[in-house]
Amino acid sequence: MNTMDSPALTLATPEGRQFFRDFYRTDLLNSTIPFWFPRSIDTVHGGFLHCLDHDGSLLDTDKSVWAQGRMSWMLLTLYNTLSPNPEWLAWGLAGLEFLSKHCFDADGRMFFHVTADGRPIRKRRYAYSECFASIAHAAAARALDSDEHATRSCELFDLFYDWNFTPGRMPPKFTDTRPMIGLGPRMMAISTVQELRSNFGVNARHQAIVDRCLEEIETLFVKPDRRVVMENVAPNGDIVDHFDGRQLNPGHAIEAAWFILLEAEYRRDSRLTRMACQMLDWMWDRGWDEECGGLFYFRDVDHKPVQEYWHDMKFWWPHDEAIIATLMAWQMTGDERYAGWHRQVHDWSHQHFADPVHGEWFGYLHRDGRRSVSIKGNLWKSFFHHPRMQWLSWKRLDESVGAS
Amino acid sequence: MNTMDSPALTLATPEGRQFFRDFYRTDLLNSTIPFWFPRSIDTVHGGFLHCLDHDGSLLDTDKSVWAQGRMSWMLLTLYNTLSPNPEWLAWGLAGLEFLSKHCFDADGRMFFHVTADGRPIRKRRYAYSECFASIAHAAAARALDSDEHATRSCELFDLFYDWNFTPGRMPPKFTDTRPMIGLGPRMMAISTVQELRSNFGVNARHQAIVDRCLEEIETLFVKPDRRVVMENVAPNGDIVDHFDGRQLNPGHAIEAAWFILLEAEYRRDSRLTRMACQMLDWMWDRGWDEECGGLFYFRDVDHKPVQEYWHDMKFWWPHDEAIIATLMAWQMTGDERYAGWHRQVHDWSHQHFADPVHGEWFGYLHRDGRRSVSIKGNLWKSFFHHPRMQWLSWKRLDESVGAS
Repeated sequence: MNTMDSPALTLATPEGRQFFRDFYRTDLLNSTIPFWFPRSIDTVHGGFLHCLDHDGSLLDTDKSVWAQGRMSWMLLTLYNTLSPNPEWLAWGLAGLEFLSKHCFDADGRMFFHVTADGRPIRKRRYAYSECFASIAHAAAARALDSDEHATRSCELFDLFYDWNFTPGRMPPKFTDTRPMIGLGPRMMAISTVQELRSNFGVNARHQAIVDRCLEEIETLFVKPDRRVVMENVAPNGDIVDHFDGRQLNPGHAIEAAWFILLEAEYRRDSRLTRMACQMLDWMWDRGWDEECGGLFYFRDVDHKPVQEYWHDMKFWWPHDEAIIATLMAWQMTGDERYAGWHRQVHDWSHQHFADPVHGEWFGYLHRDGRRSVSIKGNLWKSFFHHPRMQWLSWKRLDESVGAS
Repeated sequence: MNTMDSPALTLATPEGRQFFRDFYRTDLLNSTIPFWFPRSIDTVHGGFLHCLDHDGSLLDTDKSVWAQGRMSWMLLTLYNTLSPNPEWLAWGLAGLEFLSKHCFDADGRMFFHVTADGRPIRKRRYAYSECFASIAHAAAARALDSDEHATRSCELFDLFYDWNFTPGRMPPKFTDTRPMIGLGPRMMAISTVQELRSNFGVNARHQAIVDRCLEEIETLFVKPDRRVVMENVAPNGDIVDHFDGRQLNPGHAIEAAWFILLEAEYRRDSRLTRMACQMLDWMWDRGWDEECGGLFYFRDVDHKPVQEYWHDMKFWWPHDEAIIATLMAWQMTGDERYAGWHRQVHDWSHQHFADPVHGEWFGYLHRDGRRSVSIKGNLWKSFFHHPRMQWLSWKRLDESVGAS
């Protein structure tokens, strides 16, 4: 059954919850996982070959270090939470082994892009590779009940945190003339601690980092008077009135909103739920394309033109994040508006991103929903945002439906 | 009269040449120049405020160092070749003054992006800012008959050449694992020497640099067996079979083709003319979008998907460069195919990029020709590619029509 056949089917009804739960489960198991595995397993050098065309054919043997960590994390998380499939465990650990063997520079920081056999192509200024390796080790700690993996997970998170939050540690992006700070490191810190916590337990120092990041997001990035969440601000929270400073990333802010909803749920903090729902509301309003459907990639806080010429493209991942955020917002508030948005973004995404022939989603659409490129995996897109949405939505709907 | 009204009107007929000559002249003088001036003149800090929306309103006060050099060059070139308009001279020299005062780092290299009052925001690894400052000084040398400007022009070109062509001088883009060399520095070296030569005379050392770059383009980047011009290759000319190595930039190669036609004309070298025409033929074939019209931004040498998701957008500048290249190829070979292509790219461009309301061209279209963004100027688009096409086409057609 397709939701299009049944316009009344939303999360607000038991039939709707059952439908969406089954949909995400089936799609994860029958479409997404079989697209990636076993074809992306590099049996020669270890790790994952993830630069794949629409039919799964290999477009580039290079490896993204993000993808190695993210795919390991996802496989080990499926192993931990769905079923103890020994292939998922073996593949996840093989990804971690490739990371440990080949993806670290002499200074302890990680690369961003390596060759199939692990020679470094590119290292980046920021330290997200370390975050994704950290959560992969966290999932391995749980899968193997291993203190060693838990320790390594904490070390890598500490490296990320120190690099991003110690003044002067990370070289400035350009110069010191007009410094800005980003939503990205703050939301990544929250999400990474959440993964550590769910896999091997809470740590007071890490929890204090989440407190700090929540406070900075609320006081510096969330702007109630403008009904907006900024992507970058001056260190004191001022809006920087230039192209870069005015640029909003609705998908990113909506992803941050569900990280904060997860925290609100853990803390049973209704004030935090309200803040996260406001973030979702405002950025849905800023991001949803009323004319063509889908979420714009960039917008300008003052509704001025955005400098990035591809600003109005529709990428897969903001839609995955919006499906999660609207589902969680509905579950935590019962507000039927979120059930309506959930159905809206679910329908548009599955009509435009899905590939019924070879499985998985396409990644990049033009504003009007036409496909820009047939690629299913590249240095940015791998087995992560889409299966995470399917896995998390399935698991969360199990609670609403009653696990089967 | 619009060419659309008269399908037979091409460069191959005297009426066609007259039409296009008048069109470019009128469009330069009545549409492009009045869009930019005097509104882009920064009367407070000097230089040009060029980040402008469709109606000329200011979107960002930041300044591109490329734009400061390019706009100075274009203004001084119009002064030198069209009419001794004292405003053009004053504005061009004011741009050069801003460059000299604010755009140099302590190491002698130039910035890429500065604030309105000249504080540095960004410096880039490569050294194209220096090229554009060099040609601006070259045009000033002619305008003022100034040895000082000629000397400065040579110094800046030498800095560019040393930085780009001395092994080990420029830090690698990423790592040394898989080095590549680019068409860009070679075509920029040729074009910059051509500007120096036309403004203050030839220099044997500079001419030898052009010889070297022509030879490297022919032996390393031009691939007759594949009928293609590569954008990046291994240092020995091998095609690097990864996303970045396979990626073609048809507009850039077509721009390089007309730089080489200019050199062939200067040297009366018919072999060089043939090579440049082949470059144009192959990259027209690779770049022209048979379905929607216009030139794609990126293509893959093996016809695989391109990693850049906005690869199929239509940017203004490749169309300006293709108008020049087809015009020159027609003038130098008499082949009516080039007259047909010239008309084809002229018509598509003027139908899709032109703004009959406020003048100038829009910069960024989706594949199907719809506008992506209303911006007319930003850190990359300023008063350069488009007026250069209009000015050069007008001046070259004057020779075919008989100057009026």
